[in-house]
Amino acid sequence: MSTGNDYAIGIDIGGTNTVFGIVDHRGDILYRGAISTRKHDEIEPYLEELFQALQPAMDQVGGISNIKGIGIGAPNGNFYKGTIEYAPNLKWKGIVPLVDLVTAKFGLPAALTNDANAAAVGEMMYGAARGMKDFIMITLGTGVGSGIVANGQLIYGHDGFAGELGHTIIVPDGRLHEGTGAYGSLEVYASATGVALTAIEFLEQHKSEDSLLRNYAKEEIDSRIVFDCAMQGDAIAKEVYAFTGKILGQALANFVMFSSPEAIILFGGMTKAGDLILSPTREHMEKNLLPIFQNKVKLLFSELKEADAAILGASALVWEMK
Amino acid sequence: MSTGNDYAIGIDIGGTNTVFGIVDHRGDILYRGAISTRKHDEIEPYLEELFQALQPAMDQVGGISNIKGIGIGAPNGNFYKGTIEYAPNLKWKGIVPLVDLVTAKFGLPAALTNDANAAAVGEMMYGAARGMKDFIMITLGTGVGSGIVANGQLIYGHDGFAGELGHTIIVPDGRLHEGTGAYGSLEVYASATGVALTAIEFLEQHKSEDSLLRNYAKEEIDSRIVFDCAMQGDAIAKEVYAFTGKILGQALANFVMFSSPEAIILFGGMTKAGDLILSPTREHMEKNLLPIFQNKVKLLFSELKEADAAILGASALVWEMK
Repeated sequence: MSTGNDYAIGIDIGGTNTVFGIVDHRGDILYRGAISTRKHDEIEPYLEELFQALQPAMDQVGGISNIKGIGIGAPNGNFYKGTIEYAPNLKWKGIVPLVDLVTAKFGLPAALTNDANAAAVGEMMYGAARGMKDFIMITLGTGVGSGIVANGQLIYGHDGFAGELGHTIIVPDGRLHEGTGAYGSLEVYASATGVALTAIEFLEQHKSEDSLLRNYAKEEIDSRIVFDCAMQGDAIAKEVYAFTGKILGQALANFVMFSSPEAIILFGGMTKAGDLILSPTREHMEKNLLPIFQNKVKLLFSELKEADAAILGASALVWEMK
Repeated sequence: MSTGNDYAIGIDIGGTNTVFGIVDHRGDILYRGAISTRKHDEIEPYLEELFQALQPAMDQVGGISNIKGIGIGAPNGNFYKGTIEYAPNLKWKGIVPLVDLVTAKFGLPAALTNDANAAAVGEMMYGAARGMKDFIMITLGTGVGSGIVANGQLIYGHDGFAGELGHTIIVPDGRLHEGTGAYGSLEVYASATGVALTAIEFLEQHKSEDSLLRNYAKEEIDSRIVFDCAMQGDAIAKEVYAFTGKILGQALANFVMFSSPEAIILFGGMTKAGDLILSPTREHMEKNLLPIFQNKVKLLFSELKEADAAILGASALVWEMK
């Protein structure tokens, strides 16, 4: 018999696509789908398309009476207010009262946070952070996001926007971040975008040095190409990962001295580089730690499949609802 | 009639002196005293002297049946284990099981944390952070310490040592911290020691420039002298504070993007410099913040008298005891 709390909807709103699914308590995703985020300049037709796309799956699980609620991960999602505020990579400008709009449209309670916080909750519930009360989730994708859990709770901060570790300054007066105008933030080095920028810089700096990367036009170079070249033994490409890991490791050391987590969990496209990124990151994290913190913090890759993690993380917000 | 919970003992163990007092629920310090920390190479005779010094005051409030417990702030104090671990500026080496020893000596429950965490609890209970659930306390003294409160709770981290923000690296490959061997940590710039080092550096760099600071021998220069010279309008001394505030502001911006606090509360000897330090700190904090965090975070000085804060903070741990 249904308790009315059997299922949760998880929705992850990305700059390009929105993925969603219906999830049970075990973390199994029963139905999944995706729509374009970019297609809609206005929020209302977007939500209408989302509703139409989810309707059949909702019916399959017995309708909204069997669904506890909707969890949403979105850039600049404010947990306290249920709003998306000034998200630079979404078309909906200003402050969008998303939780109110979703609740009105679906007839279900909803909760919203940013995508990296949602990933952290998902990892705590279903992934590498099961049973941990203190950990930091770092998402290394096109950008760098983070979710911080301390005392078993996600840190939202006074205004609901805590955990923007990608924007902490690691190299004062360093590389310009075109999106934010900041100089030397973690994101401008440790993201996939950052890896491509570093590769282009290194090719310029070592003009006389041969490299497989020179087979590509500057505009073509992305983190996947750098990875492929590094795997083929290309010295400059390997150097790019060593440098990226150095910056990331320095940053992680600072984060450890802040909240002294049991583990730091890395997630996202960049983790496909495996030891190429993990080894220098660990080395420079340890090197920059006060002795009291050394050789204590686990540096782990996420245990969630990337395709599932966004949906699971968002849906996990529902089980946390009071 | 007494409830047995009327009073708390607060003890602050510093490298040089130990101060203590008996505190009531309103935060009034009824009795206070001090003994030397340095005098005792061993912990047992130290505790015996401490007990003898506190005994008369304990009797005055009606004995241990009227005292709820003992709160202790100490360098490298571990809240979870009740131990002081490898404190570089104390004579007791290795791991000292302080809570057990104190409980055995006094017949009262005890709680221990590091001095900056104790200050944060004190500020939350009696000072500028009353009613706040998210704030960061930064102590700017001989060293730089910190206590972080999120979701209304002090962050101890997985191992009890969270909140070592003085040791985060703000200037990669920057100035050497003689005590830790780290390069470019916040403490080596934003402490009283750091201010003196900066002054000496600036005097070297601007050899042809006149300065009141040149009336002092290098070894004599301390943060108080720099402050006095700055107040008399000395350009180099003022530049020292501008530089110190710049580094501190950059660091605070990173901390804000971590836990998004309602306020950052500055405490300790360095705050006597007032606007000389506060203005550049605020300017560079705001400048390094993502727009979403700008003009939101209160930057405040502690409201506790420095002489009282250590005792109040330590005693506040007692009221938090279950």
